[in-house]
Amino acid sequence: MARVVVDVMLKPEILDPQGQAVQRALPRLGFQGISDVRQGKRFELEVDGPVDDAVLARIQEMAETFLANTVIEDFVVKVEGEK
Amino acid sequence: MARVVVDVMLKPEILDPQGQAVQRALPRLGFQGISDVRQGKRFELEVDGPVDDAVLARIQEMAETFLANTVIEDFVVKVEGEK
Repeated sequence: MARVVVDVMLKPEILDPQGQAVQRALPRLGFQGISDVRQGKRFELEVDGPVDDAVLARIQEMAETFLANTVIEDFVVKVEGEK
Repeated sequence: MARVVVDVMLKPEILDPQGQAVQRALPRLGFQGISDVRQGKRFELEVDGPVDDAVLARIQEMAETFLANTVIEDFVVKVEGEK
């Protein structure tokens, strides 16, 4: 078993109202010094068996077609640890 | 400027219907060998100035009180790179 993480974030040029809402709330709540906040999604996938290049290629494809909307989102696939 | 990332995930004992929906859809879409999927949130914070222990402690507090619901969610604070 291994964990693969897919982080999906809106592209930098796409407006992120959720992140903006968080950023604007921070000073009101007493937190200063944060100039920007972006909010995205994190998927933790538990993979059966070892994570080789073929498995990573499949997950890359999965992220591209299903987990992220690549018109407006970027994604990163990371192996987070074998168990 | 530095980027600090806060990953917020549902605690393992809390049911994650979003993650389950993704996991159940995968075989239908032709992706085998994923035994579990958990979906969470990722916040990317752009911090003005250097990230020292005091700043990290503030962000930890922010995550605890505002970004995560610690009754049902766990969070991790990571420094992702100074610019």
